Amino acid sequence: MNPQLDELKTRLRDIAALHNAAALLNWDQLTGMPPGGAEARGFQQAVLARIATEKSVDPALGKLIDDLLPLAESLPADSDDACLIRGAKRDFDKSQNVPPEFVARAFEQIARSYQAWAEARPNNDYAKVLPELERNLELSREYSAFFPGSDHIADPLIDDADSGMKAADIQRVFAALRAELVPIVKAITSQPPADDACLKQHFPTEAQLAFGKKVAAAIGYDFNRGRMDLSPHPFTTRFSIGDVRITTRVREDDLGDSLFSIIHEAGHAMYEQGISTTLEGLPLASGTSAGVHESQSRTWENLVGRSLPFWQHFYPDLKAAFPGLFDAVPLETFYRAINKVEPSLVRTDSDEVTYNLHVMIRFDLELAMLEGKLALRDLPEAWNERYRSDLGITPPDDRNGCMQDVHWFGGFVGGAFQGYTLGNILSAQFMEKALQAHPEIPDEMATGKFSTLHGWLTNNLYTHGRKFLPNELVQRVTGSDIQIAPYIRYLKNKYGAIYSL
Amino acid sequence: MNPQLDELKTRLRDIAALHNAAALLNWDQLTGMPPGGAEARGFQQAVLARIATEKSVDPALGKLIDDLLPLAESLPADSDDACLIRGAKRDFDKSQNVPPEFVARAFEQIARSYQAWAEARPNNDYAKVLPELERNLELSREYSAFFPGSDHIADPLIDDADSGMKAADIQRVFAALRAELVPIVKAITSQPPADDACLKQHFPTEAQLAFGKKVAAAIGYDFNRGRMDLSPHPFTTRFSIGDVRITTRVREDDLGDSLFSIIHEAGHAMYEQGISTTLEGLPLASGTSAGVHESQSRTWENLVGRSLPFWQHFYPDLKAAFPGLFDAVPLETFYRAINKVEPSLVRTDSDEVTYNLHVMIRFDLELAMLEGKLALRDLPEAWNERYRSDLGITPPDDRNGCMQDVHWFGGFVGGAFQGYTLGNILSAQFMEKALQAHPEIPDEMATGKFSTLHGWLTNNLYTHGRKFLPNELVQRVTGSDIQIAPYIRYLKNKYGAIYSL
Repeated sequence: MNPQLDELKTRLRDIAALHNAAALLNWDQLTGMPPGGAEARGFQQAVLARIATEKSVDPALGKLIDDLLPLAESLPADSDDACLIRGAKRDFDKSQNVPPEFVARAFEQIARSYQAWAEARPNNDYAKVLPELERNLELSREYSAFFPGSDHIADPLIDDADSGMKAADIQRVFAALRAELVPIVKAITSQPPADDACLKQHFPTEAQLAFGKKVAAAIGYDFNRGRMDLSPHPFTTRFSIGDVRITTRVREDDLGDSLFSIIHEAGHAMYEQGISTTLEGLPLASGTSAGVHESQSRTWENLVGRSLPFWQHFYPDLKAAFPGLFDAVPLETFYRAINKVEPSLVRTDSDEVTYNLHVMIRFDLELAMLEGKLALRDLPEAWNERYRSDLGITPPDDRNGCMQDVHWFGGFVGGAFQGYTLGNILSAQFMEKALQAHPEIPDEMATGKFSTLHGWLTNNLYTHGRKFLPNELVQRVTGSDIQIAPYIRYLKNKYGAIYSL
Repeated sequence: MNPQLDELKTRLRDIAALHNAAALLNWDQLTGMPPGGAEARGFQQAVLARIATEKSVDPALGKLIDDLLPLAESLPADSDDACLIRGAKRDFDKSQNVPPEFVARAFEQIARSYQAWAEARPNNDYAKVLPELERNLELSREYSAFFPGSDHIADPLIDDADSGMKAADIQRVFAALRAELVPIVKAITSQPPADDACLKQHFPTEAQLAFGKKVAAAIGYDFNRGRMDLSPHPFTTRFSIGDVRITTRVREDDLGDSLFSIIHEAGHAMYEQGISTTLEGLPLASGTSAGVHESQSRTWENLVGRSLPFWQHFYPDLKAAFPGLFDAVPLETFYRAINKVEPSLVRTDSDEVTYNLHVMIRFDLELAMLEGKLALRDLPEAWNERYRSDLGITPPDDRNGCMQDVHWFGGFVGGAFQGYTLGNILSAQFMEKALQAHPEIPDEMATGKFSTLHGWLTNNLYTHGRKFLPNELVQRVTGSDIQIAPYIRYLKNKYGAIYSL
C-alpha cells in the first residue's frame, strides 16, 4: 500500500461524504420536508457545501496529488488508481481557478434566483425574475473568466457538465443533426396526428405508481439499493452506489407523464447503481457527464420503453393494471400513441423527434446571451421567434416560454442544455454497438428479458463511473467520436415504419 | 454588534448544522433507507461527526469563548447571549477533556456493538454480545476517567444527559420515591387486574395512524413544522426549530402501543418546536436535559393523554375512528384499561406506576457494573433477581431481560436511564405549577382545548431551550429543586380514585 495514495483516498472520501450528505438534505427537501424546515435547511446545505469546498481547494490536497502523478504514470492507464489520481488532478486544478468567495456568492445568488423564479413563473412575471437572471448571467461570465484562454465564453460552463466538449464542437454536431431532423419532422407533421386519446383517460395514482415500479424493477432498477418517492419534478439522486433514489410525479389524466419519467429516471439510476463497488465513496463513483448520463435515461425511456418489443411484453400487464381502459385499444394504436410526434411548447413534454429542436433553441440562445448578442429584456421575444420558426408554434406566455425551464434561473446560464441532445445522439450510438454484440436483444425484450442489454451497458459503460472522460468512454465503447448517423438511422427506421415515410 | 460574538455564533452554527445534517442521515436510515445504503451511510455519519468534533475542540474557538466571558458577565444573566457564551464555555471545556482519538474509537465500537446486539437479541444470545458489552463498559470507564475529581465514576456519564446531576443525588431521590411507590404498587396489585380487553381488538393501521395524527395535532404538535413516519422504534428528531419529526410503530392488535407513543413523541417534539426562534441554529436550540425532555413526553402521554378529561373529549372520536369496537365499552372501562397497573417484563410496555421500578433496576445495575461490583457475565442473573424481588416476576429469557434495552449496547454504560424517572417526577412538579396558574386546565381538556397548558409550558419551559441548566430551570419554574412530593400526590390521587385505595 502507498500511504500517500491512502491519504488521497481518505481526503477524497471525506469530500464525497459531504456531497452525499448534502444530496440527502436536498432529496428530503424535495420529497417530504415540512414547509417550516426550509430556511434552516438552506443554511445547512450551504455549510456542507462550504466545508466540502474548503477541503477541495486545500493546498495540501494539491501537493498530495502532484506527488502521486508519477505513480499514476507508472500504473496501467485504465486502472482505478491511475484514473483516480488523474481525475483528482483535473478537479483540483479546476477548483484552483475559482475563488471560494465566488463559490459562496454564487450559491447565495442562485438560491435567491431560484426562489424568485419559483414565485414568478406561476404569475407569468418575467419582469420579476429579469434582475435575477441578469445577475446569474453576470456570474456565469465571471465564472468563465476564471478560465482564461477558452475558445468560447461558454466552454468552461460546458466543460463542467460535458467535460472536454466545446461550444464549436457542439454547434457543428447540432447543425448536422438539425439538417437531418427538420425534414423528418416536416414529413411526419404533414400527416394527420396520431390518436393518443388512450393515454388521456383516468388513471388512479396508486395503480400508476404500482405499474411504474413493476416496470422499473423489470428493466433492472434495484429497489434494494433505491426507492421511489413523489416530488414536484422527477429526479434521480445518489447517496452511494447502494442507495440511488428516483422520484416521479403523477397526473391522473395522463398515463405517459409518470410512466416514462419513471423509466427515464430508472435509466439514470441504473447507471449509478452499476458503478463498480471498487469506486464506492470516491469521486469516480458517479456518471461521467451530463450527456452520457442522459444517453442512459433516454436509452431506457425511448429506445427500450417506447419500442414495440417492450410493449409486446408489457401491454397485457398494462391492461391488467388499468382494467377496462385498454380493451378497445390495439397494441398498434397504443404504440403509435406513445410515439406521437407533434410540435409542442414544453421541452419536457415533447416527443422524441422534436425534443432536440427544443434543446437547440436553448443552446443557441444561451450562447447569444453569454456573447452579449442577446439582451435579456429581449429574451422572451427571441424565444418566441425561434419557436415560431423552428416548431411553427407561438408560446402564449412566458410561463410556457422562456421561463419554463429552471436551468438559467437555478444555475449558471450556459452548459446546462447540450447534454440532453448529446444524450439522445449517444443513446443510439451505444445501442448500435449493443445490438451488434447481441442481436437477440429486441426479441428478448419482447419476452420481458432485459438482462442482456442491462449487462452489456453495465460492463461497457456503467461500471467505469467517472474513470474516463466522456470522449474517452465513447471512443472506448464505439471506436469513434460522437456520431449522429446511428441516431438518424434509429429515427428513420422507427418513425419511417410508424408513419410509412 | 460585537464581531467576536458574531464569530462565535458563526462557528457554533456551523457545528450545529453538521449535527443537524447527521440527524437527518440517521432519521432517513431508520425510516426509509434501502438496505443497500447502510454501509456508506455509516461512513457518512462518521465523517460528519468527526468534522463536527474537530470544529468543537478547535483552540481558536476556546480562545474566542474566553475572550467573550467578560461580555457574558456584563449582560443580564438570563439573556440569550450570556447563556450562549456560558453554555459554549461549558461544552468547550468538556470537549477538551476527551481526546478526538477516543471519540472516533468510541463511535466505531458502539456502532459495532449496536449491530451485534441487533443480531443477538432476537436469538436471545447474551454470550454473543458479552464481549461487546465488556468493551462498552471499558470505554465508559475510560470516558469517566477523562473527568478526574468526580465523586462517582458514573457522574461524568450522568452529567452528559442530565447536566449537574450526580449519582448520589439521584440515589437519594430514587430511594425516597421507591419507599413511596412500593406500597402503592402492592395496594393496587392486591386487587384483581383491570380489564383491558378493549385495547386488544383488531385496529387497522391506517385508522390508528389517522387517529394518532389527529390527537397529536389537537394537543399542539405542528405538522407544518414536522411530520410522522413509521420506524422500528418510535423516536423524535430535530433538524431545526421548524422541522421536528416524530415516528411511531403500529401493532394492529394493541391500540395503546402506537397511540401513546405518538402522544409521547409529540410531547418531546412540542418541547423542541416551542424553543424561541431567536436561538435557531445555535447549540441552545434543544431541550436542556434528558430528564426535562422526558418530563414533557410524559406530561403529554400520561398526565394529559391518560387522564379522564382528555378522554371525555376524545372518546367519541375514538369510537368513530374504530366503528363498532367500543360500542359496549363505557368510558370508565376504557379509562381503567389505559391505566391498568400490572408488573411486567418490558420497561417500554409498562404502566405509569411500575415504570419507575424498571428504571431503578437499570440505574442500580449500571452503577454496580461501573463500580466493578457486578461482573458482566453475572448481569443476566442479577437482572432476573431484581425483577423477582422488585416486580415479582422472572424474565423467561435475556431477550426480554437484560438485553431488552438498546442503551448499554448502543452507547455508554451509565447515564442513560435516570432521565426517565427524573422526567416522571418533574412532569408532576411542573404540572402542579401549571395548575396553580391555570386551574381551568382539566376542564379545558375535557372540551378539547389544550392551548392554555401548551402555552404555559411553552412560555415557562420550551422557549428557553438549553439556556438554563436543568436544575436552574426547575428552580426558575417551580421555585425549588426537584421534589418527589407532587408526583406522589399525583399518583395517589389518580390511582387512589381508580382503585379506591
